[in-house]
Amino acid sequence: MDKKVAIIGAGNLATRVSLELHNKGVEIVQVYSRTVTSALSLARMLGCNYVTKPEKITPDADIYLISVSDMVVTELLSKMQFNNKLIAHTAGSIAMSELAKFSKNYGVFYPLQTFSKFRDVSFSKIPFCIEANNKKNEAILSELASTISKDVRLINSEQRKQLHLAAVFACNFTNHMYAIANELINNKDLPFDILLPLINETASKVKNMTPRAAQTGPALRLDKNVMQDHTNMLNGKPRLKKIYNQLSENINEFHKIPKS
Amino acid sequence: MDKKVAIIGAGNLATRVSLELHNKGVEIVQVYSRTVTSALSLARMLGCNYVTKPEKITPDADIYLISVSDMVVTELLSKMQFNNKLIAHTAGSIAMSELAKFSKNYGVFYPLQTFSKFRDVSFSKIPFCIEANNKKNEAILSELASTISKDVRLINSEQRKQLHLAAVFACNFTNHMYAIANELINNKDLPFDILLPLINETASKVKNMTPRAAQTGPALRLDKNVMQDHTNMLNGKPRLKKIYNQLSENINEFHKIPKS
Repeated sequence: MDKKVAIIGAGNLATRVSLELHNKGVEIVQVYSRTVTSALSLARMLGCNYVTKPEKITPDADIYLISVSDMVVTELLSKMQFNNKLIAHTAGSIAMSELAKFSKNYGVFYPLQTFSKFRDVSFSKIPFCIEANNKKNEAILSELASTISKDVRLINSEQRKQLHLAAVFACNFTNHMYAIANELINNKDLPFDILLPLINETASKVKNMTPRAAQTGPALRLDKNVMQDHTNMLNGKPRLKKIYNQLSENINEFHKIPKS
Repeated sequence: MDKKVAIIGAGNLATRVSLELHNKGVEIVQVYSRTVTSALSLARMLGCNYVTKPEKITPDADIYLISVSDMVVTELLSKMQFNNKLIAHTAGSIAMSELAKFSKNYGVFYPLQTFSKFRDVSFSKIPFCIEANNKKNEAILSELASTISKDVRLINSEQRKQLHLAAVFACNFTNHMYAIANELINNKDLPFDILLPLINETASKVKNMTPRAAQTGPALRLDKNVMQDHTNMLNGKPRLKKIYNQLSENINEFHKIPKS
């Protein structure tokens, strides 16, 4: 693809996506980040220049990928000049229409994945959720996504918002379950790696079964003795106890056989 | 291994573990289940006989693996005659000492994994948590476990109880997070498979990073706009809204930088 791309942001997602685009031959012309060290280190890896002031962003890119926190995006973009070049944000939570005031050409380039700055991730299967203000821009963003992934989908803002909420459960909250489990066994001198085959199988099961069919455990069986034991063990941790009870209750409700 | 094994129970765990033992050449001599169809179908796969009355359990086994719901185990065992043969339960939640009244030789044979009856699972990496009333029985149960897994560990009852609680978070609650995510996107005509690369990467990350370092998402960033949007989207689902708020709060507390 012969379009020049500028990267607005140097966080987890901006870093991994821009490196992958670069590795697949896409020309990255500039990185913006307000933090010099972040801007510099990403620009070095990409072999391009960087700016730390929004007013200084280059006018020479064809596509501006905007990957900054949802909290600052509007304020930041209002300080940049895009001259109606194509701008696309990478956020699950921001409606495409929010970009309309900054350029006549806009869209969304949202990879449904969790990114950490220093962790390499395989891109080919990541679903890229594309949306744009017209067919031409939709085609450009789809082509850009397909340089790094085989799974490019047209997803509207409402669907994307719901996907992002679902991803909080399937990823952020799931990872927090791992963190809680880790905390619980560390107290008994057990290493986290003892849980890895279980974590791996739990994730693998749902490739072939629905999560409903894959469910196991005391809350599903309504094994009250075990559940009582568990909540007693959490007596010193009121927040965890609340979480335990609420998730158990929800599992139970979810799996209730509807009355005929 | 030349010991004869009887299987008490024909649920998810009993089925998968006994089939694996059988496949690895261990002689299974009998299956007990109160449900004829379960007993019969497992016994057929194992090529052995079955009983449905606890009084009828064979006296000819060397090891009795007890894999029935924690709720019925004591009542059931009191109806069986073991003649001081080695009995071992497969539960995370039951203290080993609960078996003392049924035989002079007893222990625990607990695989830390989630099992579904009709899903084949790779056993070689499953941690088998072994405990026994003496060294001899410990050695027998460890040998039995090592016919099917390379990860055999001596774990005491208190550690195992904590592991089981941790497993509820790392597996049962995690799978329920997948179920909630699935429910949320189904409402917008999105297929569950769009979440699979995210689920897979979330589980893979913690092989190389701690769950603390792997955490991402709006609750970690304290992105209040996104969190407010998400709870608004859950307005019609009060239980999910509560879960969302409580898990977000807990993530935030967990990642708070301690005051110096």
